Amino acid sequence: MPLVCLTDFQAQARERLPKASWDFIEGAADEGITMRDNMAAFKKIRLRPRYLKDVSQVDTGTTIQGEAISAPICIAPTALHCIAWPDGEMSTARAAQAAGVCYITSTYASCTLEDIVASAPSGLRWFQLLVQPDWQLNKQLIQRAESLGFKALVVSVDVPVIGKRRDDLRNQIDLKANIKLCKILQSPDEAKAVPSSLLAAMNAFFCWDHIPWLQSLTRLPIILKGILTREDAELAVKHNVQGILVSNHGGRQLDEVPASGEKGVEEVLNILKEEFRTSMTLTGCRSIAEINRDLIQLSRL
Amino acid sequence: MPLVCLTDFQAQARERLPKASWDFIEGAADEGITMRDNMAAFKKIRLRPRYLKDVSQVDTGTTIQGEAISAPICIAPTALHCIAWPDGEMSTARAAQAAGVCYITSTYASCTLEDIVASAPSGLRWFQLLVQPDWQLNKQLIQRAESLGFKALVVSVDVPVIGKRRDDLRNQIDLKANIKLCKILQSPDEAKAVPSSLLAAMNAFFCWDHIPWLQSLTRLPIILKGILTREDAELAVKHNVQGILVSNHGGRQLDEVPASGEKGVEEVLNILKEEFRTSMTLTGCRSIAEINRDLIQLSRL
Amino acid sequence: MPLVCLTDFQAQARERLPKASWDFIEGAADEGITMRDNMAAFKKIRLRPRYLKDVSQVDTGTTIQGEAISAPICIAPTALHCIAWPDGEMSTARAAQAAGVCYITSTYASCTLEDIVASAPSGLRWFQLLVQPDWQLNKQLIQRAESLGFKALVVSVDVPVIGKRRDDLRNQIDLKANIKLCKILQSPDEAKAVPSSLLAAMNAFFCWDHIPWLQSLTRLPIILKGILTREDAELAVKHNVQGILVSNHGGRQLDEVPASGEKGVEEVLNILKEEFRTSMTLTGCRSIAEINRDLIQLSRL
Amino acid sequence: MPLVCLTDFQAQARERLPKASWDFIEGAADEGITMRDNMAAFKKIRLRPRYLKDVSQVDTGTTIQGEAISAPICIAPTALHCIAWPDGEMSTARAAQAAGVCYITSTYASCTLEDIVASAPSGLRWFQLLVQPDWQLNKQLIQRAESLGFKALVVSVDVPVIGKRRDDLRNQIDLKANIKLCKILQSPDEAKAVPSSLLAAMNAFFCWDHIPWLQSLTRLPIILKGILTREDAELAVKHNVQGILVSNHGGRQLDEVPASGEKGVEEVLNILKEEFRTSMTLTGCRSIAEINRDLIQLSRL
Repeated sequence: MPLVCLTDFQAQARERLPKASWDFIEGAADEGITMRDNMAAFKKIRLRPRYLKDVSQVDTGTTIQGEAISAPICIAPTALHCIAWPDGEMSTARAAQAAGVCYITSTYASCTLEDIVASAPSGLRWFQLLVQPDWQLNKQLIQRAESLGFKALVVSVDVPVIGKRRDDLRNQIDLKANIKLCKILQSPDEAKAVPSSLLAAMNAFFCWDHIPWLQSLTRLPIILKGILTREDAELAVKHNVQGILVSNHGGRQLDEVPASGEKGVEEVLNILKEEFRTSMTLTGCRSIAEINRDLIQLSRL
Repeated sequence: MPLVCLTDFQAQARERLPKASWDFIEGAADEGITMRDNMAAFKKIRLRPRYLKDVSQVDTGTTIQGEAISAPICIAPTALHCIAWPDGEMSTARAAQAAGVCYITSTYASCTLEDIVASAPSGLRWFQLLVQPDWQLNKQLIQRAESLGFKALVVSVDVPVIGKRRDDLRNQIDLKANIKLCKILQSPDEAKAVPSSLLAAMNAFFCWDHIPWLQSLTRLPIILKGILTREDAELAVKHNVQGILVSNHGGRQLDEVPASGEKGVEEVLNILKEEFRTSMTLTGCRSIAEINRDLIQLSRL
Repeated sequence: MPLVCLTDFQAQARERLPKASWDFIEGAADEGITMRDNMAAFKKIRLRPRYLKDVSQVDTGTTIQGEAISAPICIAPTALHCIAWPDGEMSTARAAQAAGVCYITSTYASCTLEDIVASAPSGLRWFQLLVQPDWQLNKQLIQRAESLGFKALVVSVDVPVIGKRRDDLRNQIDLKANIKLCKILQSPDEAKAVPSSLLAAMNAFFCWDHIPWLQSLTRLPIILKGILTREDAELAVKHNVQGILVSNHGGRQLDEVPASGEKGVEEVLNILKEEFRTSMTLTGCRSIAEINRDLIQLSRL
Repeated sequence: MPLVCLTDFQAQARERLPKASWDFIEGAADEGITMRDNMAAFKKIRLRPRYLKDVSQVDTGTTIQGEAISAPICIAPTALHCIAWPDGEMSTARAAQAAGVCYITSTYASCTLEDIVASAPSGLRWFQLLVQPDWQLNKQLIQRAESLGFKALVVSVDVPVIGKRRDDLRNQIDLKANIKLCKILQSPDEAKAVPSSLLAAMNAFFCWDHIPWLQSLTRLPIILKGILTREDAELAVKHNVQGILVSNHGGRQLDEVPASGEKGVEEVLNILKEEFRTSMTLTGCRSIAEINRDLIQLSRL
């Protein structure tokens, strides 16, 4: 039976992956109790179809922080793609490049940054930083990402502690052992390589006071990922960051679904793009610029 | 066990039809994600019963675009009735005529317009047009329907693209192959007949600018089918169309349920008429003119 | 296992009664689509407990149309109790008398009015009239009930037609055959007896204009049963009736549950009285007069 | 499989306890129909995470009526812990002392007050009084608790009658027989011991007028447990009590879950403390004083 929607891919992944890997991936999408809320919230959205516009030409292309993408779809940062398929983030990067979307690479990638860049040299990539206790290490990671052509720095603000992942605890998954799989700190350049044992999984100390220091290290735009309140969004503006990423666990959940290495990722991205194009067509939008909040039935939210 | 309500007919159809046909019919009722919303919305409606009026005489009859019908019930346009029973739209037309309701014939009927008219010559019928890329073909279809006695032109506005029907994709149903079953373009008059291969299933190019041209071709009233927003309804008024048909997928779902060719359709129509008459009686309405919005418990919607 | 709540009695009735009888009783409680709404509405009610009042003495007694009852509980009129147990309404009357509550006897009782009165001579009873097409018969029924000591006339306004009871149709239950079981029109006095074949099950002709005529026939207070809108309640006031009975299908559903003839009815009534007394105690009400709308959490409704 | 959350403990208790004991404990948590509402209400609460504060040091400690506790967690008063494990309230007291939280001992404890105090001499404890019909007995209980070092008097106001516990009735559990298990009135000092047969399970007579008398007997702060309305809360202020305890059945339900006598209770308390600490961290609160209502998404409630 052909896989025709993302739910089909998800079901197949559940069937084929070892239980502990599946739980880790599903659990990884869950920070606290909000995952089900997220899914329910998405299902509550109703579009307001507008008809009798000429939509024979629909262009889903747009730009993000000045760079062109084929549709407003990004692959959110997730850890350790090697758990789902051997080539890990190299496949993800190739699929993102083929689909023309942005791939946000995680601090906890299982491939080195150099290998990821080499596998898909012309794709758009951002680097997600989980701020580390070792400030020298933060500096090294940011500057290495910038010199490798990553176009923005996504800074996670929502992991002062690791949320309690019950399935992982029941499966007795050891987060510290997993971090050893991260190769991001290795480098072909021996001088730059640092042992992954330095990596920490959380950063309770990290606060607004450190933002200026991050800004002093790089000319890349800085995006804060995980902001969820109006108050924190206002503080982000005050600190002159270039953007915020509001709650995107749904995306995270879906982009790791495996299907014969990068071909599956490409298919998933194409399904998303097609569904997006159909939604634009049925709401009478010929370009991203024509999308506005009138297309959503706000009274349902 | 006697079939006493439409759900009983639906259950029997599901049991008797091949799975792919059932999925096609159920799927045909679904444009996007709204079918379940439709059903839930209908179930939310509560009537406000008014008592102690003399309702020994209740008349459900009314007119639609100037023509008399026995109750405000129409058969919405749906494609390819031959999938459910051999006689296809000829049976539907006979049942509609017997019940005294209006039958809106689809562009994608599996019988020719001439056969449909011949099978039930005195019934009220409207013709539903899915605007085609070939303008000459549109003109030919409209004028042929008008000359065959169809009383209004229903123009679908909600299929710039075909919604993604997952079950059809899984069943690997080929929409283009299905269109070949449409005989509507055939004609006893060889000069008028056109090959069905000309028929397109969608019309992204079709827009408000084409409405005046349609109006120039025919004196039939024009009804836009599929309008769902206040903004589009206002544009319809501005373009001087005679009516709009707001979201009627529920109706579409039910009128195709088969039961020993047209006898089943007649029974279904009679059940609908009886339920409508009972609702009028219990809300104290002796005629259609007495129905007003006070009969609905609006606070529930 | 002891039967400790009404749901227990209901479950036992379902188990012991023939399916068609059970469907008839459950269906009889259902006028249209509102039964599930009724149950859900009851479950939404939350009491606001008030504490630290001396509730060692709680009196549930009150009066209804000037007559004393032990608690504000009445047995709503339902037809043909002989379907559930042989003694029919005679058992119901004895149980109501023992519990000190009011029993509203149905026009469609399976016992004669004389037998019902003789079986429980000191109990409080009202008579429910379904207005008949034969006006002489209405007069005879009303005056016979008044002379037998019934204390009020409950006039059903909500059966201009019989709602469609799907289970009865599936079970091929013949309502007219059932009416033949009604013995209410028989009488020890041959002169008064009339054949039950005269009884009609609905009265679409009955309207506000007939209320003065009913009032001219009797000095009993008149209660309209089935009023559901503000507009009809205002008309009831204008027509000088003594009361209205708003939607009580829940009660109707429960009072027919059988358990070894009247002992079961008595137990059910006692459970209701005890539950009512507990609710009064936990809301700090020592008498019916202390009950007011502050005890309900209105924001939930 | 490790027990990682309270639901895991609950499931294990259900599996290991005799059915009647489990029903008694679950039922004991239920006063009327509100238990499911309580659970649903807790699940509706959503925290508003605040990020980029330095939360490397989070202190969950606070004080309650002037006494220090390690986290704002108390063990609510529940009866007869010996039903779940042999050591009963002595284990509970030791676990509470180890966790640094307050244990509110029930009038219906299965151990004597003296044994409970001796088992965990340095723990913080309050005494819950169900006011008894014998005023001399109330005085004796209050003064004995005060002299044994209990730090507050929790007076239950919500049991003028016992709610109807259907499962207990079905299991034919005899509440009076259970009260005989209470040893709280026994004492090493023969002169003080009173037979448990004096204990009553409810107090419909108890009212606001008795509060001054209770205040005259003791210098302990008085907390009214079970207040649920604004009106009663205002009366509590007027009567100069030191606090009220609003609906805490959820807590009651969980603290009796057994797991190898007090080790289980300790684990449960630690899970609660850890979950509380994580919630503080993810909402950017470094101390109890920083917690305020802005952290709750009020629009959901």
